Amino acid sequence: MTTNSQVTVLGLGEMGSALARTLVDRGYRTTVWNRTATKAAPLAATGAGVAATAVEAVAASPLVIVCLLDSAAVDAVLPRIESSVSGKVLVNVTSGSPVQARANADWARERGAQYLDGGIMGDPTYVGTPSVMFSFSGDRGAFEAHESTLQALGAIAYYGEDAGLAAVEFLAQVAVGYEFLIGLLHTFRLVRAEGVDVAKFAQRVAASIGGYVPLVNAFGTAVADGEYAPDLGSLDVQAALMDDLISHRESLGIDAVRMREVKILMDRRIADGHGDQGFSSLFELLRASGRSSPTSTSGWEQAESTEDRGRTPSASPH
Amino acid sequence: MTTNSQVTVLGLGEMGSALARTLVDRGYRTTVWNRTATKAAPLAATGAGVAATAVEAVAASPLVIVCLLDSAAVDAVLPRIESSVSGKVLVNVTSGSPVQARANADWARERGAQYLDGGIMGDPTYVGTPSVMFSFSGDRGAFEAHESTLQALGAIAYYGEDAGLAAVEFLAQVAVGYEFLIGLLHTFRLVRAEGVDVAKFAQRVAASIGGYVPLVNAFGTAVADGEYAPDLGSLDVQAALMDDLISHRESLGIDAVRMREVKILMDRRIADGHGDQGFSSLFELLRASGRSSPTSTSGWEQAESTEDRGRTPSASPH
Repeated sequence: MTTNSQVTVLGLGEMGSALARTLVDRGYRTTVWNRTATKAAPLAATGAGVAATAVEAVAASPLVIVCLLDSAAVDAVLPRIESSVSGKVLVNVTSGSPVQARANADWARERGAQYLDGGIMGDPTYVGTPSVMFSFSGDRGAFEAHESTLQALGAIAYYGEDAGLAAVEFLAQVAVGYEFLIGLLHTFRLVRAEGVDVAKFAQRVAASIGGYVPLVNAFGTAVADGEYAPDLGSLDVQAALMDDLISHRESLGIDAVRMREVKILMDRRIADGHGDQGFSSLFELLRASGRSSPTSTSGWEQAESTEDRGRTPSASPH
Repeated sequence: MTTNSQVTVLGLGEMGSALARTLVDRGYRTTVWNRTATKAAPLAATGAGVAATAVEAVAASPLVIVCLLDSAAVDAVLPRIESSVSGKVLVNVTSGSPVQARANADWARERGAQYLDGGIMGDPTYVGTPSVMFSFSGDRGAFEAHESTLQALGAIAYYGEDAGLAAVEFLAQVAVGYEFLIGLLHTFRLVRAEGVDVAKFAQRVAASIGGYVPLVNAFGTAVADGEYAPDLGSLDVQAALMDDLISHRESLGIDAVRMREVKILMDRRIADGHGDQGFSSLFELLRASGRSSPTSTSGWEQAESTEDRGRTPSASPH
């Protein structure tokens, strides 16, 4: 058995247990550790080795997957594994911020370890299948050395040497989903208030979701190029519709915060002489304040210069 | 030529012109009218009859499609066609509220006309193809009598005798789209601030959209049944993630209004003892205030009683 077939998993919550179980199933010599030791029992029964301490667990394998509840738990565990971490590859799939990922990478580097940060999208039940997507960023050599092991866990993607990029991708994809789903729940409340069957309405929404695929791609291209076609119709036409949307929601006491925001942005674009452009042009009015932390300064500056290049000459300054 | 092959279109904006052009192409004897007469010239060239006044245009056909800029324009035109509207079928596809649709239906009924209200989703370029979806509600007999003509315009659906239902469906579907798309634009700002290529990020979002189809259906069933499985994971786990999402967005000065709302709702559900349920359970905390207008009272009361039936016994009162 090569050392590449030895893996440690720190953290045996629902996701950590699924990761460890999958690795055992695929024949990896798997060592597990959890703060509450009782959670290790089902895995011990399937053949995993159970370490008494985190530092022992890390010592057992060249590849250490960290899957804890949150970043605070990671911060609590890292000092406890410090003496055995040199020469190891840490793969932290605990959800956290890009800033934390970059700080963890620095911590590992200073102690002679390599670091990969990872995000997981999907249900623990489907770990080991392509339905669970893992995004990684950080040390490229470490990723390439352990790519086949990571592939055993699901679909994987690598976003670059900046350890923060996987968290950026994860947080951004999750945010897109949450924005969509909280808006959907508010709209469920609206249709129910009007006497419409929510389950049937959901089926109609689900049936129309495919229509957003070309639109999302078109929005991405429009923003990247700074050229805003009248995607959903011109803003002049859409603004009239927004008034109807807002007054309908308000008449039923349904949340309209996003709709009011959209209307204000539309009115500003129209006042600026861009009423012939589409919804995607509202991007020009959305600001990042630049209150980013020092560790992400380079990303921020790059973003600013990209934005300036992307602007059309006709765009008014904001 | 039967009278069913005669159609009038009031309003020759981009959409009205597309409707009239499609009807001419399909062999309907089409009469058009627009407040600004010059817009009728291209249609006259393709064979449409141009009426000098709205009341003449209505007199020319048993089926009258009204496609104006907004409800205010409809309110301005209806009194002008009053003397020729008896016995006609009015199909109003101007975007407007359910309350306005119901008021228009009353207006038509009192004058011996039948009324259908309609919503249009799609680009005027694709009128006459299944890519443009028309939703109708109102007089069922009128819909059935003119179904084949309406089918010439695109994919059609009928939602019931309550004239307001098509507008409810339209406003709800559009709102789902706008919530998703404004959230997407904010997230574009976030990934650009982190130095990620927006067009490539959009491609990855587009590629993952299909994953929302089963989720939307599951949300609809969960809300309809009042039984909330841990869809995206339990709220206990998701709440930790939301903190990361919010702090990341705020560190970059990116809008986090929806994320903060979601976190507050998650915390309330967890405090109420529902931390094992999923995201869809946040629906229970969203309120319709009941400030609905008198005309939609019945729908409102129905919604309230449906909700009470749907509640799980363990749900705390709010």
